[in-house]
Amino acid sequence: MKFTIVKSSVVVVTLTVLSLSLARAQEPLSSWNDGAAKQAIVEFVKATTAQGSPQFVPPEERIATFDQDGTLWVEHPMYTQIVYCLERVPALVKTRPELKNKEPFKTVLSGNQEAIARLSTNELVEILAATMTGMSVDEFSAEAKQWITEAKHPRWKRPYTELTYQPMQEVLQYLRANGYKTYIVTGGGQDFVRVYAEQVYGIPPEQVVGTAGGTKYGYDKSGKPFLTKEPKLLLNDNNAGKPEGIHLMIGRRPFAAFGNSTGDQQMLEYTKAGAGARLAMIVLHDDAEREYAYGPAQGLPDTKVGTFTQALYDEAKKNGWTVISMKNDWKTIFPFEGK
Amino acid sequence: MKFTIVKSSVVVVTLTVLSLSLARAQEPLSSWNDGAAKQAIVEFVKATTAQGSPQFVPPEERIATFDQDGTLWVEHPMYTQIVYCLERVPALVKTRPELKNKEPFKTVLSGNQEAIARLSTNELVEILAATMTGMSVDEFSAEAKQWITEAKHPRWKRPYTELTYQPMQEVLQYLRANGYKTYIVTGGGQDFVRVYAEQVYGIPPEQVVGTAGGTKYGYDKSGKPFLTKEPKLLLNDNNAGKPEGIHLMIGRRPFAAFGNSTGDQQMLEYTKAGAGARLAMIVLHDDAEREYAYGPAQGLPDTKVGTFTQALYDEAKKNGWTVISMKNDWKTIFPFEGK
Repeated sequence: MKFTIVKSSVVVVTLTVLSLSLARAQEPLSSWNDGAAKQAIVEFVKATTAQGSPQFVPPEERIATFDQDGTLWVEHPMYTQIVYCLERVPALVKTRPELKNKEPFKTVLSGNQEAIARLSTNELVEILAATMTGMSVDEFSAEAKQWITEAKHPRWKRPYTELTYQPMQEVLQYLRANGYKTYIVTGGGQDFVRVYAEQVYGIPPEQVVGTAGGTKYGYDKSGKPFLTKEPKLLLNDNNAGKPEGIHLMIGRRPFAAFGNSTGDQQMLEYTKAGAGARLAMIVLHDDAEREYAYGPAQGLPDTKVGTFTQALYDEAKKNGWTVISMKNDWKTIFPFEGK
Repeated sequence: MKFTIVKSSVVVVTLTVLSLSLARAQEPLSSWNDGAAKQAIVEFVKATTAQGSPQFVPPEERIATFDQDGTLWVEHPMYTQIVYCLERVPALVKTRPELKNKEPFKTVLSGNQEAIARLSTNELVEILAATMTGMSVDEFSAEAKQWITEAKHPRWKRPYTELTYQPMQEVLQYLRANGYKTYIVTGGGQDFVRVYAEQVYGIPPEQVVGTAGGTKYGYDKSGKPFLTKEPKLLLNDNNAGKPEGIHLMIGRRPFAAFGNSTGDQQMLEYTKAGAGARLAMIVLHDDAEREYAYGPAQGLPDTKVGTFTQALYDEAKKNGWTVISMKNDWKTIFPFEGK
């Protein structure tokens, strides 16, 4: 009799675990508040994956693309890659001393944060080119990998890799669980993002599309072949470069795309213009307390990092893109919250 | 009693089917003759996928790259894509009549096969650029798709898409069954090969790396966005361009690579130079009867299509690449044989 009771308990426990699992399976976006944004994601997935749905998409065509900076992780006060390149300057000057007294490297070496913040786009591009090219692909990858494990964000004092948005991680998982191949399509350097994308987002190198330079094949003294990163730009993966990069690297139009700035406008347009059910979503940084609030669409200053203009907001509304309010749609922001 | 016999028969039939299935599972390269080439493939797969093997490769790193023309399908007497571009010239001249009396288009329109065969590489490049750019990505894809279903190879009078090598199809399947992601890395046009690669090889567009031009994002009269194919070359996916293209599009070094000509040399070197077990294989066209025999490595004429030099043969032997003899290693050549 006792034995039977034990068995019943096991059944009860099993059923409880099962129903919890089912509840979780039915509730895959648990860091999202109920609302239009969450509903848009769930309805899109149902429409494109349910057998018999008129908008069913064959598994091999299920492509979803995500901008990175400001869409999957924090982009303020400065893009992570810019921080990396600025911090690489001292090591660069050691190997190329002629740059020491040359601008913009001189300003970076001065450590004067205000002067560094005033560097022009062209000056930043010069720094990016000097710190991200000229070495072998393997050397670059090893250096960037080392840096990303050590560098910390000035506000949260945590590695940048921990500052991903938990709700977006859940979207990545939810889409993948429903047969979608998830891609990063970033204005950032393709080789830089590839260094950590697999560990941070579960996205392998071959599913990272980014701003890409050429490489040059050659041989070392022992005859072993290697690739050197060249300062030749092949793809500027911003604005119109995003759909162009998607065609180059993926060759299919996405069914879902996620962005947060004018740099993502064309990717969202291109995605939404396809036939059938298409999901275009755009993250609005409107949570000054838990993250940041910025951008002209909210009457806030344009900080030049992840610009969200009023025109973009109007286009989103007109074209049926869904605006994600960080403040209202996201229950938690970061994976480490509540831990 | 009768009923029992029937049941036994069912068991016998079931067991027979099962053992046949097992035999097939154990014998995945059934169009290959036993020999060094088949053995190299099987041993490589065992070494990189068996749990506990010192050369075990995690599933996410299992990348295999295949040249197309001459490696996966027939490349003689002319690359399929060249045939396509030549056959597109009359339609091109209809939309651009100014080309009618201009070389090399005039020669192509003349239909003089000997004169066409004498066109220089530069003239062919001019024809390729004119027939493969200037239209939208969707228009190009629709036209190429239509052509590939209708065009036939002059010798076999079958669609080009039927002239794939059955033993290589089995290698693709065998590698995929063992967790490898299979890529085409072709000197041919990326957009052209993507049109049929999924149907012909089970390789999706995002796993086709080829010679690639730029595209330009724009809007039609109704405001709908589209991409136009531009005559700007982004990647010449031949020779050193193959490892460079692999880095650009895949971002990982392959563990296995297959080629058949000097255009594949650097891809094979790059693959073989990686740590651990690496497989580099090169197809030798030495079967004049069932397919073709050509190339200086056999003391045969260099037909300029898929050149296999003596130097390449020597490098293969020196570096531990495996040479595949079509004549000796392949039981059957084409999927339609024996059907």
